[in-house]
Amino acid sequence: MTHYSPASFKPLTFHDAVPRFLAGRETPRDYLEACLATIAAREPEVMAFAFLNAAGAREAADAATARYRAGAPLSPIDGMPMGIKDLIETRDMPTEMGSAFYKGNRPGRDSALVQALRAAGAVIVGKTVTTELGMSHPGPTRHPFDLRRTPGGSSSGSGAVISARMLPAAIGTQVLGSVIRPASFNANWALKPTQGALNRGERQGYSQSTVGVHAGCAEDMWAVAVEIAKRVGGDPGEPGLYFTGEATPPPFKPRRLAVLETEGWPEAEPRAIAALEQAIAAIRAEGVTVIRRADHPLLEALEQRLLDAMALARDVCAYESAWSVANMMAKNPDALSDSLKGRFELGCSITLEQYRMRLLQREDMRRAQAALAGEVDGFIGLAACGPAPLPGDTGGSTNRILHTTGNPIMNTASSGLGCPVVTVPIMAVEAMPLGLAVTGQPHQDERTAAIARWIAATIPPISL
Amino acid sequence: MTHYSPASFKPLTFHDAVPRFLAGRETPRDYLEACLATIAAREPEVMAFAFLNAAGAREAADAATARYRAGAPLSPIDGMPMGIKDLIETRDMPTEMGSAFYKGNRPGRDSALVQALRAAGAVIVGKTVTTELGMSHPGPTRHPFDLRRTPGGSSSGSGAVISARMLPAAIGTQVLGSVIRPASFNANWALKPTQGALNRGERQGYSQSTVGVHAGCAEDMWAVAVEIAKRVGGDPGEPGLYFTGEATPPPFKPRRLAVLETEGWPEAEPRAIAALEQAIAAIRAEGVTVIRRADHPLLEALEQRLLDAMALARDVCAYESAWSVANMMAKNPDALSDSLKGRFELGCSITLEQYRMRLLQREDMRRAQAALAGEVDGFIGLAACGPAPLPGDTGGSTNRILHTTGNPIMNTASSGLGCPVVTVPIMAVEAMPLGLAVTGQPHQDERTAAIARWIAATIPPISL
Repeated sequence: MTHYSPASFKPLTFHDAVPRFLAGRETPRDYLEACLATIAAREPEVMAFAFLNAAGAREAADAATARYRAGAPLSPIDGMPMGIKDLIETRDMPTEMGSAFYKGNRPGRDSALVQALRAAGAVIVGKTVTTELGMSHPGPTRHPFDLRRTPGGSSSGSGAVISARMLPAAIGTQVLGSVIRPASFNANWALKPTQGALNRGERQGYSQSTVGVHAGCAEDMWAVAVEIAKRVGGDPGEPGLYFTGEATPPPFKPRRLAVLETEGWPEAEPRAIAALEQAIAAIRAEGVTVIRRADHPLLEALEQRLLDAMALARDVCAYESAWSVANMMAKNPDALSDSLKGRFELGCSITLEQYRMRLLQREDMRRAQAALAGEVDGFIGLAACGPAPLPGDTGGSTNRILHTTGNPIMNTASSGLGCPVVTVPIMAVEAMPLGLAVTGQPHQDERTAAIARWIAATIPPISL
Repeated sequence: MTHYSPASFKPLTFHDAVPRFLAGRETPRDYLEACLATIAAREPEVMAFAFLNAAGAREAADAATARYRAGAPLSPIDGMPMGIKDLIETRDMPTEMGSAFYKGNRPGRDSALVQALRAAGAVIVGKTVTTELGMSHPGPTRHPFDLRRTPGGSSSGSGAVISARMLPAAIGTQVLGSVIRPASFNANWALKPTQGALNRGERQGYSQSTVGVHAGCAEDMWAVAVEIAKRVGGDPGEPGLYFTGEATPPPFKPRRLAVLETEGWPEAEPRAIAALEQAIAAIRAEGVTVIRRADHPLLEALEQRLLDAMALARDVCAYESAWSVANMMAKNPDALSDSLKGRFELGCSITLEQYRMRLLQREDMRRAQAALAGEVDGFIGLAACGPAPLPGDTGGSTNRILHTTGNPIMNTASSGLGCPVVTVPIMAVEAMPLGLAVTGQPHQDERTAAIARWIAATIPPISL
């Protein structure tokens, strides 16, 4: 068991290795070999990978090495070793989605973002463990800092490869809280972008889901997102991630922030709230106005509309996935978990009328957030209810769905809002990581990352 | 060669057979056998099917027969024999998409709408021919009324099974003009619904594409659409097709209509325009105000914004499909047509900035249509530039892309607008069918169908 401290933990970073590559003092192959050595040491107990492709990674790293030698890297992430959540298709590896149903599935194609990453020179090291289809049923991954604990989900492996220092970056996906929660548990910097801002490729089945980036630092997180957006944009019909330049946005000191409690607030651990209050005090001490729900009727109006975000997401996603799960049920029901079957039953029970009412409710949420666009520069809050839980303390259940990888309730708001969230790893509770979530208006991903950087650069780390 | 006349042609209809099923005077199996006999007679020369599943259809028809016998049909389309465009997945048949790349592809699952149709009791007879991936490269289908001519595309088979009297209904898809054009050529009633109003299942890759319904009459067309929407709704995040009851909307006499010329007007054949003018005169004679672009500055503003709809759609779709075609190029480029490769090159050349500009241009089009919502009840125009063309007269090419199944230019406007269109088979030119297109505001599919029914019920058929 590792005692985590946000002041001392040093995850892998890549952007600062690039000058060494360019100067010939180190190569992407060297960088990869260090990653593979850590993977060899830690993977047997952490189990973050669904599939590891060391040979393919070495080949890609050697190609990157040759490009740096020629002084012609493809992008700022040329040579970056990365993991891809095993929901996302890769041409040279299986895509098993944490599901017995997809055992041995080899689609033989690269999802849009994987194509973009390869074209940018990234080194795809392997597929990272996901819960079953990105839903509730957990995979084998254990928390690198405390093997008894869950690393979070559904992007379990993508969160854990960062805290285990196996990789500098990985791709996750989020429907409810599947990027931000494991990012919080694993001291990641992570971006859950605006809905549709990064191309989901073949995974267009949900109206509220995104791909996201897990990384050891803000620079790598942002660079990965930009390199995807430049090459394959966002979802069909979406303008894609906005970025004003290729560089990571510099820290931006906000004038006013709002605390976003969400429906998760009553579920948050007292020490997690205490840590956040300490961060709020530190931010205020810098001269930033931080408003609370009692301070502003529009903020209270937003909070009121967020109180049903979990049930909303559950219904919307169950309805939207029912036809797809029906195919699996028809073919091999034994390969589906009880939890997935529960969601399927729910999906079948929801009528078109009820679905429309949920969409209307979601629009109400979004309008309430938009109403604050001129009032605050962003929102801050907890990225999870507390640190990664121990078994038996995983946040209860909703509608037969056990939250075995932790409770997503602190993330359902921003998932439904379709707005960007960046986690900042500056807090610890019980010597385990806890993320501060910076939330922005839709399409303000860059501004949100810039505020997150300012917080990280300004606020002293907090350990409770 | 059949001389078509809109006054005398009698396509298959299903809704009027249901009372006979309920009275025990005929069975769905009888109905199917008549279809299969026509298919046996005509299919060798028409080639409308990519795959025929007579055994599966007979089994489904027998099950429907038993339900009618028990007085418990599943829906108004229980027992309806239907074709499914071969872009759409079916669990018991191949899905080859008109592409050598997908030869033998058996996804083993039912797309959302196929599930809905089966659950409503429909009898899936086979997969209908599509152009390559629904793009330009043609399939083998020939026009049932004149084998020298194209039946239109990309829903070639779905259009032709109606004019060949093989089936009462079939599912097509449209990106540019792939439902409305073959519907026009083949004397179909067809609905190209509001963008997202009918669930596209696994086919969510384009921001402007829909599934659509081809049928021999308005009643069957509407019933199929409703039965899909009731069971699987629309695309993720969309409210799905609106319908105020299960019955086909009764004819609705509009107060005011606008003629929508679109960028296709200069390409339209003089006799096609003459036929439409005759229809306009007949509609006016009923006391309906029909405005032209010179009559109203907002209509002129809309027409101006539609002038680039073809190039817009070409760029948007090429950009959105590039990552997917890249996988095919990497795997087996020889299995792709030159036309598809041309689109791929175009897609790779479009930047994110250019794509965003195209989306903005599309929004401008849509706002210009919305600006007329209170001015007219709907729009009328030509569903195609003329009747199904003869070889060598297929409307030229755009950017290396040959329009070998006819020119979609009369349909690019409504595709970009994302609004509903219903074709009414009341015109003929050169003894070949020509459709009148009734176009509505987004989500006014029911009203649009009702206006189309009023036109069909009121205006005498026109043959020029």
